[in-house]
Amino acid sequence: MHYLDHAATTPVLPEVRDTMLPFLEDDFGNPSSVHGPGRRAKEAVEDARDRVANAIGASPAEVVFTGGGTDADNLAVKGAAHKLRGNGNHIVTTSFEHHGVLGPAEWLEGQGFEVTTVSVRSSGVVDPQEIAAATRKSTVLVSVMTVNNEIGTIQPIAEIVETVKASHPNALVHTDAVQALGNIAVDVDRWGVDLASFSAHKVGGPKGVGALFVRSGTALEPVTHGGGQERGLRSGTLNVPGIAGLGVAAQVAAKEVDEKQERVRKMRDALLAGLREAVPDLIVNGELEHRVAGNLNVCIPRAEGQIMLLLLDQAGIACSSGSACQSGAVDPSHVLLAIGVSPALAKGSLRFSFGRASDPSDVQAVLEVFEGIVAQARKVAA
Amino acid sequence: MHYLDHAATTPVLPEVRDTMLPFLEDDFGNPSSVHGPGRRAKEAVEDARDRVANAIGASPAEVVFTGGGTDADNLAVKGAAHKLRGNGNHIVTTSFEHHGVLGPAEWLEGQGFEVTTVSVRSSGVVDPQEIAAATRKSTVLVSVMTVNNEIGTIQPIAEIVETVKASHPNALVHTDAVQALGNIAVDVDRWGVDLASFSAHKVGGPKGVGALFVRSGTALEPVTHGGGQERGLRSGTLNVPGIAGLGVAAQVAAKEVDEKQERVRKMRDALLAGLREAVPDLIVNGELEHRVAGNLNVCIPRAEGQIMLLLLDQAGIACSSGSACQSGAVDPSHVLLAIGVSPALAKGSLRFSFGRASDPSDVQAVLEVFEGIVAQARKVAA
Repeated sequence: MHYLDHAATTPVLPEVRDTMLPFLEDDFGNPSSVHGPGRRAKEAVEDARDRVANAIGASPAEVVFTGGGTDADNLAVKGAAHKLRGNGNHIVTTSFEHHGVLGPAEWLEGQGFEVTTVSVRSSGVVDPQEIAAATRKSTVLVSVMTVNNEIGTIQPIAEIVETVKASHPNALVHTDAVQALGNIAVDVDRWGVDLASFSAHKVGGPKGVGALFVRSGTALEPVTHGGGQERGLRSGTLNVPGIAGLGVAAQVAAKEVDEKQERVRKMRDALLAGLREAVPDLIVNGELEHRVAGNLNVCIPRAEGQIMLLLLDQAGIACSSGSACQSGAVDPSHVLLAIGVSPALAKGSLRFSFGRASDPSDVQAVLEVFEGIVAQARKVAA
Repeated sequence: MHYLDHAATTPVLPEVRDTMLPFLEDDFGNPSSVHGPGRRAKEAVEDARDRVANAIGASPAEVVFTGGGTDADNLAVKGAAHKLRGNGNHIVTTSFEHHGVLGPAEWLEGQGFEVTTVSVRSSGVVDPQEIAAATRKSTVLVSVMTVNNEIGTIQPIAEIVETVKASHPNALVHTDAVQALGNIAVDVDRWGVDLASFSAHKVGGPKGVGALFVRSGTALEPVTHGGGQERGLRSGTLNVPGIAGLGVAAQVAAKEVDEKQERVRKMRDALLAGLREAVPDLIVNGELEHRVAGNLNVCIPRAEGQIMLLLLDQAGIACSSGSACQSGAVDPSHVLLAIGVSPALAKGSLRFSFGRASDPSDVQAVLEVFEGIVAQARKVAA
């Protein structure tokens, strides 16, 4: 299988697996327990907190472990909105955010909040001035993702923070940085954001665990209530093996990011060149310049993405159409619609995403079958 | 280490680990993806759904995977309350529930709900008539745990459901059954509950994953919004290895429950007999009759639980004082206060909880040191 769907999920790295295993069986304690097994579990959690903090440019006390990226997004968006309700009821976000942000924002509308959804240019890059212009005195939260999960475009997050804070210093800025870690250098301190969401399984860590960066001094209301773990922000027994795995995965992602970018960029560019040769009327969604090196998202006119996926799968190639996160949905991608792609064209989208284990044979495998598959898909659609 | 803290957490069973491992590295796909790796991940999730359903007496479509027991409690309590707000704003629960229920109930009070907290008799068993008496026309949810996590007492959940529904058929009944699975026979259908929470790590499964039984036809509002996984009830990429592990753990728990009860009851009774001999003024918290076989919760007058825990830990014995879920808290247990134990006495509590791997040497180890440890702890307190 040639796996070119690393933006959907990644295999757990061997070093991550080796870190996790002891906490399943031998050091299986509950970190809230005071005895030996409990203390060893707690040490593992705090060690992972240090690693995550180092990887993202935060202090350990600013890292809150969550049940995943969506869980972190929910805590950030709802937690900030509820906490700051006394200051205002307005939220600014963009039309191509992950559903982990759009879902909570929509829910908050039902709770009396007003949400301004800033549109995105066809480049797939948000204009900081437009974000700042949408911000008001009553704005309590601005949420703009660092890297779009479908088209891979990188947002000028530091500039967005600077522009927003210049006129509205009390508005909090959150970024869903799930697709940033391992793909670009992450530095929440330099970016200046107040809140940033991360997920383990996108960077060689396990599914079911993530982290929210909460800048020191930033108060949130919890979303999950209970035993008061994670300083009351995320109750529930800590997932010790998962957290230990996230720690190592984040560390590896940060350490290897430069080398990985260089390596996957070559493969991505070779893939694009080959695809263009095979299908000259192929359209690249979003600009290539401000985009993570491992992402390629294209539309094939007069072909259905679902059909092409099926044929690629039969040829041993795994990639995606739109986002894998919208469970089972076959609607055109909201991200592509947001950057102005027509619904008909958006249905013919394909996302190829490279990861640590990708190699040139993956590109070769796609190029060998692509022209034939597009021709076949177009026949079905005709 | 003699581990007598299985109510806090349990080691992952070898067969659970073996089930999980392939989904970390080889079959690591995202179950929302349509390609081969995604489909295999989805099959694993649906296989686990079948196993959990069988273990608890539900249909597969009634099982919603969550990030753990607290996550399931939050979804049940808030999800039902928000959904049924049009019918009323009243919730009935008890004073000795897990914080995963009490926390959401308290939060809902801030959202305009009224919560009646029914007190618990010194036996540690709730009176169904008192629950029914607290239920009103405006009651949308009744939440009573099946087995108390600290004192192990078993609640007459089927009778509670019957009594409540006789007068208020539209009130939903939820039970936190986290400590029931593996300790008593679980049958949500026979119990008649509408909602029931489960956790993997209490029964030889991994931390960070749980399930909510949602009776067919019961509508909930989600608490975690996003990509719409789990029929929109719990968004976020599914934790495939964790879910696969929960499936096997639940199956083993259900299969072995009778044999395990018999085995651990003998050890628990031997422990109690020995403790009473060593410390004649020891008090058992809650009645022994309606209690899971593997739980013993006692108070030692004139001794601090934290000191005894420390000394037991030094002697290689892991147990707990109160609940491990109240992170780092040294307040007297709310459960013991709820059943009428005085705050001073409650601080001298110890919980011993047996599990699948417990054997008589664990009891022996405690009995060898117990008299000396209590004497030492009493010296410190004097």
